Amino acid sequence: MARVVVDVMPKEEILDPQGQAVANALPRQGFEGVSHVRQGKHFELEVADDVDDDTLERIAENFLANPVIEDWSVRRVES
Amino acid sequence: MARVVVDVMPKEEILDPQGQAVANALPRQGFEGVSHVRQGKHFELEVADDVDDDTLERIAENFLANPVIEDWSVRRVES
Repeated sequence: MARVVVDVMPKEEILDPQGQAVANALPRQGFEGVSHVRQGKHFELEVADDVDDDTLERIAENFLANPVIEDWSVRRVES
Repeated sequence: MARVVVDVMPKEEILDPQGQAVANALPRQGFEGVSHVRQGKHFELEVADDVDDDTLERIAENFLANPVIEDWSVRRVES
């Protein structure tokens, strides 16, 4: 089995109210120095060794991300 | 400025209905070989160079994760 991580983030031009809410709240709680926060989704998948990279890309594109408003990255990680 | 990634995942013992919904749907759409899917949150932060690791841990614990039901990891990444 292989472990795969897929991170899905809103495209740069897309408003990210959740990330902005965190960024705005931090100074009020005494945490200075954080200028930008973006929030997305993090998926961890366990896949059979015969699942190839092309299939992983199609899974990310069709199931995990909305290609219109989100970018995604797929990477294999140590099990 | 430094770029920091914080990944927040449900603890192993916590039910992950979203991850299970994806895992169950994949075979129906012809994607075999994915046995387990877990879904969490992925944060990307831009922080001043003087923000230390301890502060980042406290930000993760107090703002980005719910320590009762979630685990998190903090890592600095290339800007």
